[in-house]
Amino acid sequence: MTDRYFDDFQVGDRFVSRGITVTESGIVDFAMRYDPQPFHIDVVAAKESNYGGLIASGFHTLTLGFRMVLETGVFRACSMGSPGFDELRWLRPVRPGTTLHTEFEIVEKTPSRSKPDRGIMRVKFCIKNEAGEDVITFTSMHLTKRKV
Amino acid sequence: MTDRYFDDFQVGDRFVSRGITVTESGIVDFAMRYDPQPFHIDVVAAKESNYGGLIASGFHTLTLGFRMVLETGVFRACSMGSPGFDELRWLRPVRPGTTLHTEFEIVEKTPSRSKPDRGIMRVKFCIKNEAGEDVITFTSMHLTKRKV
Repeated sequence: MTDRYFDDFQVGDRFVSRGITVTESGIVDFAMRYDPQPFHIDVVAAKESNYGGLIASGFHTLTLGFRMVLETGVFRACSMGSPGFDELRWLRPVRPGTTLHTEFEIVEKTPSRSKPDRGIMRVKFCIKNEAGEDVITFTSMHLTKRKV
Repeated sequence: MTDRYFDDFQVGDRFVSRGITVTESGIVDFAMRYDPQPFHIDVVAAKESNYGGLIASGFHTLTLGFRMVLETGVFRACSMGSPGFDELRWLRPVRPGTTLHTEFEIVEKTPSRSKPDRGIMRVKFCIKNEAGEDVITFTSMHLTKRKV
């Protein structure tokens, strides 16, 4: 794969990651460390909850979705991190057996005025389930290296 | 601790979590699973990066900060999950040895019109370092049980 830098992206460029299946043990393991709420770690309590069964922590789904983005390699050479995300929405619960992938689109590009080595891209992310339904959506700001 | 429900919170209520120290091995372990970018997993490459050294994945810092929130027990009885976060900002890099804690404030309360068992609270979160500087800020919507 060819390395991409800020000037190689166009507004409207779209990318699709490969998939990953969310498992019950993955859900419980992540939640035990980071989000130990009953509907993420306790199948019995989860059945009694408003979700009617075990669901993945939203942080878990988000990080899995982002891991799939990194695996595309699109940002491999140019990523300088992110100053923030906007309008992060958890739209559907993720249950064991759900297979996720991430689709993302470049929606805005702004060269840095103060730092000639970089620009900021706004990227719209949709983490989807195997039925193609949105599970998480958000927009990120993405510090992106220019080729020097 | 007394269980809190939607009607027990007042706009302006503020809470402070205990702390957690972010370690180099914690940073690398998390990033290897979820955010394997050079500045999160490779001390040598991180030195050459725009961060000048290893920093924690923003997802890692976010989930650690939220784990500290759960440990306060404030939402233990009433949490029904979150439909979304707004204006999530990563304001300072988190390096090995940083000790984080989270401060949060109830900024808005709205009873659900359709579901009498719950309300939505907007909660403003600040994850801070040991110098009291903001590391991450965001506002969440928080589905909150009413006592029935």
